[in-house]
Amino acid sequence: DFLSALDEVKPAFGIASEEFEQCTANGIIEFAPSVRELMQKAHLFVEQVQQSSRSPLVSLLLHGPSGSGKTALAATIAQRNSYPFVKLVSPESMIGLTESQRVSAITKIFNDSYKSPLSLIVVDDIERLLEWVPIGARFSNSVLQTLLVLIKKQPPKGRRLLVIGTTSEREVLAQMDMATAFSNEIYVENIGTLHAMQAVVQHAGLFDEQNDYDRLFADLSEYLENRPFSIGIKKLLLLVETARQDPDKYSRFKNEICNAY
Amino acid sequence: DFLSALDEVKPAFGIASEEFEQCTANGIIEFAPSVRELMQKAHLFVEQVQQSSRSPLVSLLLHGPSGSGKTALAATIAQRNSYPFVKLVSPESMIGLTESQRVSAITKIFNDSYKSPLSLIVVDDIERLLEWVPIGARFSNSVLQTLLVLIKKQPPKGRRLLVIGTTSEREVLAQMDMATAFSNEIYVENIGTLHAMQAVVQHAGLFDEQNDYDRLFADLSEYLENRPFSIGIKKLLLLVETARQDPDKYSRFKNEICNAY
Amino acid sequence: DFLSALDEVKPAFGIASEEFEQCTANGIIEFAPSVRELMQKAHLFVEQVQQSSRSPLVSLLLHGPSGSGKTALAATIAQRNSYPFVKLVSPESMIGLTESQRVSAITKIFNDSYKSPLSLIVVDDIERLLEWVPIGARFSNSVLQTLLVLIKKQPPKGRRLLVIGTTSEREVLAQMDMATAFSNEIYVENIGTLHAMQAVVQHAGLFDEQNDYDRLFADLSEYLENRPFSIGIKKLLLLVETARQDPDKYSRFKNEICNAY
Amino acid sequence: DFLSALDEVKPAFGIASEEFEQCTANGIIEFAPSVRELMQKAHLFVEQVQQSSRSPLVSLLLHGPSGSGKTALAATIAQRNSYPFVKLVSPESMIGLTESQRVSAITKIFNDSYKSPLSLIVVDDIERLLEWVPIGARFSNSVLQTLLVLIKKQPPKGRRLLVIGTTSEREVLAQMDMATAFSNEIYVENIGTLHAMQAVVQHAGLFDEQNDYDRLFADLSEYLENRPFSIGIKKLLLLVETARQDPDKYSRFKNEICNAY
Amino acid sequence: DFLSALDEVKPAFGIASEEFEQCTANGIIEFAPSVRELMQKAHLFVEQVQQSSRSPLVSLLLHGPSGSGKTALAATIAQRNSYPFVKLVSPESMIGLTESQRVSAITKIFNDSYKSPLSLIVVDDIERLLEWVPIGARFSNSVLQTLLVLIKKQPPKGRRLLVIGTTSEREVLAQMDMATAFSNEIYVENIGTLHAMQAVVQHAGLFDEQNDYDRLFADLSEYLENRPFSIGIKKLLLLVETARQDPDKYSRFKNEICNAY
Amino acid sequence: DFLSALDEVKPAFGIASEEFEQCTANGIIEFAPSVRELMQKAHLFVEQVQQSSRSPLVSLLLHGPSGSGKTALAATIAQRNSYPFVKLVSPESMIGLTESQRVSAITKIFNDSYKSPLSLIVVDDIERLLEWVPIGARFSNSVLQTLLVLIKKQPPKGRRLLVIGTTSEREVLAQMDMATAFSNEIYVENIGTLHAMQAVVQHAGLFDEQNDYDRLFADLSEYLENRPFSIGIKKLLLLVETARQDPDKYSRFKNEICNAY
Ligand SMILES: Nc1ncnc2c1ncn2[C@@H]1O[C@H](COP(=O)(O)OP(=O)(O)OP(=O)(O)O)[C@@H](O)[C@H]1O
Ligand SMILES: Nc1ncnc2c1ncn2[C@@H]1O[C@H](COP(=O)(O)OP(=O)(O)OP(=O)(O)O)[C@@H](O)[C@H]1O
Ligand SMILES: Nc1ncnc2c1ncn2[C@@H]1O[C@H](COP(=O)(O)OP(=O)(O)OP(=O)(O)O)[C@@H](O)[C@H]1O
Ligand SMILES: Nc1ncnc2c1ncn2[C@@H]1O[C@H](COP(=O)(O)OP(=O)(O)OP(=O)(O)O)[C@@H](O)[C@H]1O
Ligand SMILES: Nc1ncnc2c1ncn2[C@@H]1O[C@H](COP(=O)(O)OP(=O)(O)OP(=O)(O)O)[C@@H](O)[C@H]1O
Ligand SMILES: Nc1ncnc2c1ncn2[C@@H]1O[C@H](COP(=O)(O)OP(=O)(O)OP(=O)(O)O)[C@@H](O)[C@H]1O
Ligand SMILES: [Mg+2]
Ligand SMILES: [Mg+2]
Ligand SMILES: [Mg+2]
Ligand SMILES: [Mg+2]
Ligand SMILES: [Mg+2]
Ligand SMILES: [Mg+2]
Repeated sequence: DFLSALDEVKPAFGIASEEFEQCTANGIIEFAPSVRELMQKAHLFVEQVQQSSRSPLVSLLLHGPSGSGKTALAATIAQRNSYPFVKLVSPESMIGLTESQRVSAITKIFNDSYKSPLSLIVVDDIERLLEWVPIGARFSNSVLQTLLVLIKKQPPKGRRLLVIGTTSEREVLAQMDMATAFSNEIYVENIGTLHAMQAVVQHAGLFDEQNDYDRLFADLSEYLENRPFSIGIKKLLLLVETARQDPDKYSRFKNEICNAY
Repeated sequence: DFLSALDEVKPAFGIASEEFEQCTANGIIEFAPSVRELMQKAHLFVEQVQQSSRSPLVSLLLHGPSGSGKTALAATIAQRNSYPFVKLVSPESMIGLTESQRVSAITKIFNDSYKSPLSLIVVDDIERLLEWVPIGARFSNSVLQTLLVLIKKQPPKGRRLLVIGTTSEREVLAQMDMATAFSNEIYVENIGTLHAMQAVVQHAGLFDEQNDYDRLFADLSEYLENRPFSIGIKKLLLLVETARQDPDKYSRFKNEICNAY
Repeated sequence: DFLSALDEVKPAFGIASEEFEQCTANGIIEFAPSVRELMQKAHLFVEQVQQSSRSPLVSLLLHGPSGSGKTALAATIAQRNSYPFVKLVSPESMIGLTESQRVSAITKIFNDSYKSPLSLIVVDDIERLLEWVPIGARFSNSVLQTLLVLIKKQPPKGRRLLVIGTTSEREVLAQMDMATAFSNEIYVENIGTLHAMQAVVQHAGLFDEQNDYDRLFADLSEYLENRPFSIGIKKLLLLVETARQDPDKYSRFKNEICNAY
Repeated sequence: DFLSALDEVKPAFGIASEEFEQCTANGIIEFAPSVRELMQKAHLFVEQVQQSSRSPLVSLLLHGPSGSGKTALAATIAQRNSYPFVKLVSPESMIGLTESQRVSAITKIFNDSYKSPLSLIVVDDIERLLEWVPIGARFSNSVLQTLLVLIKKQPPKGRRLLVIGTTSEREVLAQMDMATAFSNEIYVENIGTLHAMQAVVQHAGLFDEQNDYDRLFADLSEYLENRPFSIGIKKLLLLVETARQDPDKYSRFKNEICNAY
Repeated sequence: DFLSALDEVKPAFGIASEEFEQCTANGIIEFAPSVRELMQKAHLFVEQVQQSSRSPLVSLLLHGPSGSGKTALAATIAQRNSYPFVKLVSPESMIGLTESQRVSAITKIFNDSYKSPLSLIVVDDIERLLEWVPIGARFSNSVLQTLLVLIKKQPPKGRRLLVIGTTSEREVLAQMDMATAFSNEIYVENIGTLHAMQAVVQHAGLFDEQNDYDRLFADLSEYLENRPFSIGIKKLLLLVETARQDPDKYSRFKNEICNAY
Repeated sequence: DFLSALDEVKPAFGIASEEFEQCTANGIIEFAPSVRELMQKAHLFVEQVQQSSRSPLVSLLLHGPSGSGKTALAATIAQRNSYPFVKLVSPESMIGLTESQRVSAITKIFNDSYKSPLSLIVVDDIERLLEWVPIGARFSNSVLQTLLVLIKKQPPKGRRLLVIGTTSEREVLAQMDMATAFSNEIYVENIGTLHAMQAVVQHAGLFDEQNDYDRLFADLSEYLENRPFSIGIKKLLLLVETARQDPDKYSRFKNEICNAY
């Protein structure tokens, strides 16, 4: 079945596969059941576009805190399907482009997709594509309007399109009528249990002995006393690497967590 | 009579017929008497322009919540008449155009219409044409001013014009003096009764057995307990398709509705 | 005398006559004494420019609610005089022009007028010429400043000029120092009595029998019970035409009025 | 002496004389002692620039309500002296110029003045030169900054310059640091006494009989009962001309005044 | 010593000497001890740059009310030293330049200074260089940012630079982080004692008799009764010149002062 | 070990070494243990990038009050490592560049770094790079967006990058989502103890006798009475140089400190 294929990546038509690989350099760790559930839910939309002739356009917004893994998840969905056209719209590919060049670049990708019978476009980090900044509430209205129209635009007869967007600023997008432009949305949450954290740290192999993991998380459990915490998978993985440089890996990791919460 | 022709589409002069077809891909389901009434009311204005020499210009604004069916209704009115000139002004056709190119494109369509004795122009999704965004209240004033003038401009002697606009942002348009620029307006409402919802779901043929429909809506009726709800026809149809992918269509559909209200 | 000439139109020098005709397609109905009084008052300024060598520049602002008949009145004043130069500055003639082209077009008309010994310029719908929009209080300051200067600029020695402006946004213009730039102003009011309304409906010939008019306005009188109402002549005339399409003209017209007030 | 020369105009070097004449088409009526005093005060500055080698730059701002006669007074001062260079900077000469062209035009006039040993520049209607509008507080900052520097810039060694500015918006200019850029200022007041008003109306010769004037102002005196009023000389002169067209000049003038106050 | 040289001016390398002369046309009157103290304090910074190899960059902001003598003082410091490179950055030299031309002009002067072993740059009237206006808080951010960087930029190895800025808007500059960009600042105060005022008036030689001075200031002393007052040296000198034109110099001067305070 | 190498500077590949030298002209004085600790902490990140293949991108923000030594510290870290690519992005190198040229310049440095296996980029004075000014909250959004993307952009496979930013406006950067774009941050504090201040003054060698230092700081200790104070190392060093010019160095230094706190 689909989820057992967690480690194999099917190459997608076009030049995007390399870009998607870079987004998932650290893989998808199943640190909690919610990870698998999310992938399953997303997979239903992949099927819907493929199967139901009455919904040639479906769109899905992955939103959640900074570093919670949205881009990696979207890229993984993009990698694991047999759609002939799969492309990434990302802020990195827009650096140095003028506003109208951005609009052209985005429009071109959507227009290209209309030539394939079945297409998937990942629109990553939408607030960054919009050059959003809270001070003065600045952003590119041209890019916004282009996305607002393209995300709702029915593909031509006989063509089907799945659009997956990601954002850390769902509230801002909602104020721009962008959130409602997506027909569906899924929340990507941070890691909030020690159990899930332990799964990640073990997967990253910080220590050599299982014992160390158990002791560490017993310590942390005692320290935190059921106080809630929340850490993005991205930050957690980086923190493991920083700790790895320290002669005293154990204390270093523990202290960083304890200082933060 | 006019309404019995609900399924036949008369081709309109010019290239717009294809565009209109795409807007009505799922047809017009008569899920409630209000649908037929609305079409009848709109039809009176079609007649007025054709008959009364003293009102060579009539304009009608269809407004209502997002996804309530405004575009499909406007397109259907545009398809069902014998006007020799019928055109669509839509945000999709404006993607990538500069502000002044948008103004030119819109102006050209109105100027072309003045060459035909009897014309109908659909100005779809006006807030999007204006590139409206609530944050910072940004929009294209050039496009706004052009529309404000064109919608009130008398066609030349002997020419007649019906303008139908659609918008989900009537309040915004009112603040821009755009709403009052239209001489008439009709509210397109969401689906707000289980009876109407059932009509749609049955028309879409989600289940094979009539029994399932009855059971589903009995369940929903019990669950909702007369609590008011409101769902756009567009969203409802998409939800039916998503449910259709689920092995357990019945529960899926029911849950989605129950979770939402 | 001047007012007995209500139906004859003297052609004015230049190309403007056609434009003015279009503005008065439905004529000027004398639905109340105030109509005649207004025309008389305006006529005095026409005389002043022609006679008094000490006031080579007079300007008059017609202001009032949307659709109250300002443009038609200004156009009628422009048509009924023997000035050799009579021109219209209107938003319709500015569509698609850039800000600086608008400034040039307006300036050209004023400069042309300085070549004629006696000139009249109608500056119609000033808020629209300024591309005014309340949201964000946007407008073209270049056009505003040009008008502010031109409306107060003395014509060259031996030349005389009457400027007639119209606006539905007197308050806005006042905030822009535009209202005070005009040396005189007249308020064009909506229809506010059933007597005046009846005069219009009869003039438009909605019914065949006098009886119907009497019954209708007796009904309306009863319904309104002296509640104040206010309707623009433009809207009222359009409403008569819409009612005319209805099989039951009588009820249709009555209902539309009753629903509105 | 200087003031006895109230009616003779000395031609000034350069092309400005014609422009100044147009500003004083109706002459300067000495309707009150303050008129003569103002001219005397202004004359002192004309002398100072001519005499004192230690003050090669003097500037004077005439400010007061709209239509109080500022431009006519500045023009008259400009006409009555023997300076070899006398120029007018006015909004009318700036129509259609871009912001940078305005800056160039203004700079050129000041640079030209530096070539003459003794120069006078009238900067008329400064708020209009700045394209000031209260809504949104818009204006041309380039023009403002240019004026701020030029008005305070010492002419080259051996050159002397008198700058006379006029404005109806002293408060606005003060907020722009413009008012303090002028080294001196004089207030030009409206007409506020019936005595002064009578002087103007008689000078304009509205009636044939002295008797009529006396009766009129007795009537007005009775009506106004010492209530304060304030009318600009410009408006008063125009009102006299409008009244002159009326068969009943007497009542017309009286009513216009009574309606206003 | 340095201060005894109050009247001799050493020519500075480059073309700036003429410009500086114009700024000090009326010399520096030592109307109070604070004048000499200020010059002494400023002189220490001149020495520091020349002597201490560890502080190759020193900057000094002269701030105080409009007309208090900031420019004249800065120019005098610039004239009295043996630095081989001394230049003035002033708003007058920027008239008509675009924003980017201003940036270039300023940058060029700083770059030129880096070629001389020892340099002094006067940046005069900074708020005007920035085209600052309080309404809408407009200014040239490009010029601001350029100054912010240049004023803090260490000259190349072996080069030394003293920057002297002047402003009447220290508070505004502080809000722009400009005030703190200067490493030192000195307040230039207005004249606030009758003693100092008398020193100026006598130095300007308004009267022929010493007696007149004594009587005048006895009168003023009596009138002012220890009420505080504050007048800029610039305004005071101009006022003396205006009074000089008046037949009754004594009363004129006295009245102007008495009316003001 | 690393910290014993406090005085030797390893030349870095590329042209940046000269620029970095200028930033550390006065060296790094170890006036408190925190200085060494900070360098140690920063050094761990240098190691992490070099060692851990799972964190090819690490970023570090040095923030603290103006003049606290951020640039000198970042430059020192940049100088003391064996990375083959070390570059400085600084406001000084951006003077006179347009917004898009700045974006290009910054992008080029990052792109160049991707060609080296191991790179370090110092992004100095970020608020100045952004042309930030608090009035009106203006800044270059293009530069901001470029930095936001580049600082988070994973280098290509096999490449590693350490980014060190400096700012005095951490709060502002946080509001721009810039602070969180850095994966780590360290606070660079001002000098806040007399002990540390004495270390600096002695290191700078203000006096010849140890006695003088002791007396001075005894005096200051008495004067300050444990009142808190805070002075940047940059300002303190400049103040020592100014005092050095004074005949009475002792009193001068003491007074400047006493007046300030
Ligand atoms: N279960 C998981 N879900 C998501 N990412 C995971 C998971 N397990 C490991 N990862 C790794 O965690 C990192 C998540 O980073 P990613 O850039 O996707 O986060 P993000 O939410 O897009 O961050 P940002 O808000 O900055 O855009 C990736 O390197 C990914 O390989
Ligand atoms: N009675 C109906 N009225 C309108 N649309 C209907 C009706 N029955 C079925 N439909 C279908 O529902 C969909 C309505 O979508 P449509 O785009 O017209 O909505 P909209 O209000 O214009 O949405 P938006 O606010 O996003 O512009 C169309 O696919 C149309 O074919
Ligand atoms: N007494 C009247 N005064 C004015 N217009 C009249 C009168 N009688 C009939 N009309 C007709 O009424 C219409 C008035 O419309 P008009 O465009 O002049 O109104 P308006 O106030 O300029 O509207 P808007 O505010 O939209 O510019 C014209 O068609 C005119 O022929
Ligand atoms: N004593 C007077 N002072 C000024 N103007 C006078 C006087 N007597 C007659 N006039 C006439 O009054 C008119 C004054 O108009 P003017 O344009 O100078 O006023 P203004 O204050 O400049 O108006 P605005 O505020 O519109 O610029 C001129 O025609 C002038 O000839
Ligand atoms: N002690 C003094 N200090 C400064 N200026 C003096 C002094 N004595 C005489 N002056 C003269 O006073 C005038 C001061 O004008 P200056 O332009 O320097 O003032 P400012 O403060 O720069 O004015 P602004 O705020 O308008 O720029 C100069 O003409 C100068 O020669
Ligand atoms: N321990 C130290 N830390 C930092 N700088 C030091 C130290 N000791 C001496 N210095 C010197 O102090 C000066 C610090 O200035 P620097 O420009 O680095 O400060 P900054 O915080 O970047 O200032 P700004 O906020 O203006 O950018 C440098 O000349 C440096 O050589
Ligand atoms: Mg992401
Ligand atoms: Mg629609
Ligand atoms: Mg009109
Ligand atoms: Mg004037
Ligand atoms: Mg100055
Ligand atoms: Mg720094």
